[in-house]
Parts: sequence; structure tokens; C-alpha cells
Amino acid sequence: MPRVIAFQGEHGAYSDEAIRSHDPEAQTLPCERFVDLFRAVLEGKADACLLPVENSIAGTVAQSYELLLDHDLRVQAEVILRVEHMLLAIPDTNIEQIKRVKSHPQALSQCEAFIRRRGYEPLAAYDTAGSARVLAAEPDPQTAVIASRLAGELYGLQILERGIEDNPYNSTRFFLLGVNDAPYNPNVPNKTSIVFATRHKPAALYECLGAFARNQINLTKLESRSRRSHPWQYWFYLDFEGHPEEPHVADALNSLLRSASFVKMLGAYPAAPMPTYTDNSTSALHMIPLPRAELKVNGNEQ
Amino acid sequence: MPRVIAFQGEHGAYSDEAIRSHDPEAQTLPCERFVDLFRAVLEGKADACLLPVENSIAGTVAQSYELLLDHDLRVQAEVILRVEHMLLAIPDTNIEQIKRVKSHPQALSQCEAFIRRRGYEPLAAYDTAGSARVLAAEPDPQTAVIASRLAGELYGLQILERGIEDNPYNSTRFFLLGVNDAPYNPNVPNKTSIVFATRHKPAALYECLGAFARNQINLTKLESRSRRSHPWQYWFYLDFEGHPEEPHVADALNSLLRSASFVKMLGAYPAAPMPTYTDNSTSALHMIPLPRAELKVNGNEQ
Repeated sequence: MPRVIAFQGEHGAYSDEAIRSHDPEAQTLPCERFVDLFRAVLEGKADACLLPVENSIAGTVAQSYELLLDHDLRVQAEVILRVEHMLLAIPDTNIEQIKRVKSHPQALSQCEAFIRRRGYEPLAAYDTAGSARVLAAEPDPQTAVIASRLAGELYGLQILERGIEDNPYNSTRFFLLGVNDAPYNPNVPNKTSIVFATRHKPAALYECLGAFARNQINLTKLESRSRRSHPWQYWFYLDFEGHPEEPHVADALNSLLRSASFVKMLGAYPAAPMPTYTDNSTSALHMIPLPRAELKVNGNEQ
Repeated sequence: MPRVIAFQGEHGAYSDEAIRSHDPEAQTLPCERFVDLFRAVLEGKADACLLPVENSIAGTVAQSYELLLDHDLRVQAEVILRVEHMLLAIPDTNIEQIKRVKSHPQALSQCEAFIRRRGYEPLAAYDTAGSARVLAAEPDPQTAVIASRLAGELYGLQILERGIEDNPYNSTRFFLLGVNDAPYNPNVPNKTSIVFATRHKPAALYECLGAFARNQINLTKLESRSRRSHPWQYWFYLDFEGHPEEPHVADALNSLLRSASFVKMLGAYPAAPMPTYTDNSTSALHMIPLPRAELKVNGNEQ
């Protein structure tokens, strides 16, 4: 039986496209809000859900991290989707006929130079896939929409132009969330995501990061955040290379538990390949591990 | 002569409201895109501009930081605005008449529980203030808009309900940017914002943060970011307490210059008070300064 994976938006949303790129067999379940994704999994309506956590242009999705903190789902995989905006119209439209372009304001602004160059009138819509669905239902040869390739396919629209975004480095990173931990595969590069809070004392973060430095662990994301509902408390979102099943990662997490006010494991999962416009498969902050040579200074080998 | 301060959006946008809260005498200049703000200042059309850099719900505005990196304006002040959404309608409307509510999708989603409770039909618009302007120009007693108090005032709309956002902890932080540095005032708490890149070597970030730890400087924001157009290079946005005119800050910045791949000063400015829903005036990461007692261990005092 195919897995049911929930996503926010309508069929044809970029999240829907990301699920199908990750698991072509999955059945995708649209939900209205981010919080509904968590509920769908917890209530057994879905086996997993796909939550956007950061976009290379818009930045970290703060709301997603708040929801991760408030629930107990586990990150089972990360999915990175290159966001490629398509100009879609009803079949047999000639591109010269187009006068208006409809989409979510964020998609419109990401294609702003393109729209300006063509002299189209931009019109706001609630979401990208929804504007494709509406255009298909109410055909208008002078209106195009900006949405995913999948939305075009699902609603029978024609692709007038591909990749119309002004900035080609547009990708969204998602977490695939489920109730259980992903099985550990030692043969692939793994990543671990946690949230921790520092204690209310000087040098607290510096001490927390020391656990990772001593264990030569590469961090791949570090972000401070204060919750306005909890003034004076700082939270850190941290992604790093490695898996808690590896002894040096377990050691770092144990040290962190002793230094931090609290630590919440979000999950450990295989690292996703980067989108195809980069030529490197993964990248790390290169900030934490002490060099091996340096470590040896304190040992017997020098 | 009043200062001209550019902002993104239409008159009545939250940015416009933030400028007026910061400098009630200023003349505000609407611009279409974020990049136009920088141009307005560099071309002398505005004395300064106000750029949103983070929102407590949506997170860091990644695009703003990219623009700060690519231009040479200086942060002269930070402005923190509590975002309070108003339900606005044409004058003499009775709240029972309202059937539809129009706004930017982000504002609609921030008031989603309210809209659902009332059973209104949500309609997407390009921005909040623009939907207020359009409603005033094309009056419809069954339609309300979600926008700022200022938009209601400017376009002669009536406030049907205040503070309709689902999450009361909604604030946006802005940078006021100009060509020159703000004058140093040693009598107020100051903050400094920088961007730096780490070198491609192990423990690079750990080394960079050491400069701040040794100088007992509190960090208030730390965020890693990889630029997909520059794979393998990591950037950090860092805000900390203090001013480069203070010797211990100058020392930390000098150490950082030696450790980092590059450092870009964004500016030093008086710290803004937090919005009124918190009872603390500022908060810090409490992570970097070593405790005084600890420092004394290496001195002559113990």
C-alpha cells in the first residue's frame, strides 16, 4: 500500500512536487495549515508529512520550527527541492495573448523582473497551485499563472515558459516527519537536527558548542532565536553531520545535555543531495571540528 | 526640513507605520521593491530607508541580508514594531454585514483563526495597505480588509476590530539605513551588526566566536547561511551588544578580522526597546562572555 504523506497547500503545490520527487509511489494528502500536517500524522490520517523549514531566498520558516518544538514528530528525511517556476496557461494559448499573470505574491515577487520585462499585470492569489486550478476551471486565454510543473500537469495547463524565476538559486528544504525514528544506515552520510536552549549564564553557547568541537563534528546550520513569549530564553536550531548511533556524536550530545538548559532531538536522517545547480553534493560550516593535528598536541603522538 | 525615509510598499504599510513611530516628523517615500530602497538612498532621493530584517513569526528576511551584503549602506538605528492587524471597513459599516476579508496572504494566515471563527471568505491581495486603498476607492459594505491602523487612517476606513492576529507575539525588526554611520552615544545601550565569513578550515567558527568570549561581549543574534551561488562558503549574521568605539569591542573585531575570511560592518546603533508585550527591555544570548570570576583565575586576583 502506498504511504500517505500530508503537505500544506493544494495538489500541485511545491510541497506536493517535493514529496513526489522523494517518493514517487506516495499518495499525497493536502492540508490547509502547517499545524494540520502534525495533526494528520498524530491522528493516523497520514503516515508522514512534509514540512518546509527553509528557503534559500525567503530564509528559515520560523513557524515550522515553533511547531517542531511543540510536537513530538521525528525528522525521517530531508528533501531539498529546486523551486522552478513555470508560466502556465490554458492549452493552445499563444504567449502573445497573455496580459495578466496570477499567483501567490511571493511567487510573483520571485519572478518580478520577468513580469516587468513582459509588461504583464500581476494579480495576487491565495496560492500557486490554487491559481492553476482556478484558471483551468475558468479558462481565460489572456491570463497565465505561475506555479509548479506538477500543477500544470494535474490541471491540464500548458507550459508557456520554464524557470522564469529571477534568481536561479531558489531551493526549499523540507523535513519529512513521522512518529518513529528513521532506521540508521551507516553507509550513507547522515545528519542530525536538534533544538537546544542555553542556560541563563555567561558563555553558555560557547560551552555548548565545545561539545561539538571536541568531537570534530561539522555543523551545517546554527540559528539563534528568542521566543517573545519566553523573554530571556534563547533557543538554537542546530543541524550537524553524523548520527547519534556514532560514538563521537553520542558523546557530544551527552556533553550538550550537561551544558544546556534542555535539548530536543528532532531526528537523524540521511543527508539529501543538494539541488543540481551546485556542483558539490553537501557543504558544512567547517567550523566546529578541531583539526586532527591539533588534537594530537594533547596526546602522546607528538 | 523633514527627513525623507524610503520604505517598501504603499502608504499605510507596516513599514510606513514603523517609520512614523521612530521619527514622527519624517516624510515617507514608498518604493516597489527592497532593492529600490537602497537605490533611493544611494541616488539621494531619500535620506534613509527602513528595511525589515526579521519577523517573530516569519523569521529572518533572507533577501534583506543579501541586499545588505551587496550594498554599502550603514545601519543607523533598529526599529522594532509590534504588528497589530486591524479589521478595516468603509465608514458606517456594521460588523454583521461583513462577508469577505481581503489582504496579503501572510496577513490572512496570521489572522486565520479569527477569520475562521467569523466565517469570512478570505481573498488574497498584493499587499495589506493596497487592499485598504482599493476598498476606499471601490467601497463595498460586505468587504473588510486587514491592514495597519495607519492604513485605516490614511484611506479613511473605520476600525471594526483591533489586534485580530492569532499570535499576539508578532513583531518585525527593521534596520534604518543611511550613507553615514550614526553618531556614537556612549550613554545608551548600543548594538553592532556585522556579517562575516569563516575560512575553509576546521573549527573556524569556534575560533571566530572566541574573540567575543574573551571580550565578554553578549551576542544577540547569530545565524549561519550558505549562499547557494557560493557553495562551501558560510556566512554568519551576528548582532552583539556594544559599539566599536569601546576598546573591548574594537579588540574583538580586530581578532575576528584575523580569524575570518572577511568581515563586513553593517553598523552600530542604539538598541531599540522591545515591543510592549514583553516586560524586559532587551535580551541577549547570554552565551559569549566568560564570567568575570573565571577570567580572574588567570590573573593576579585569586
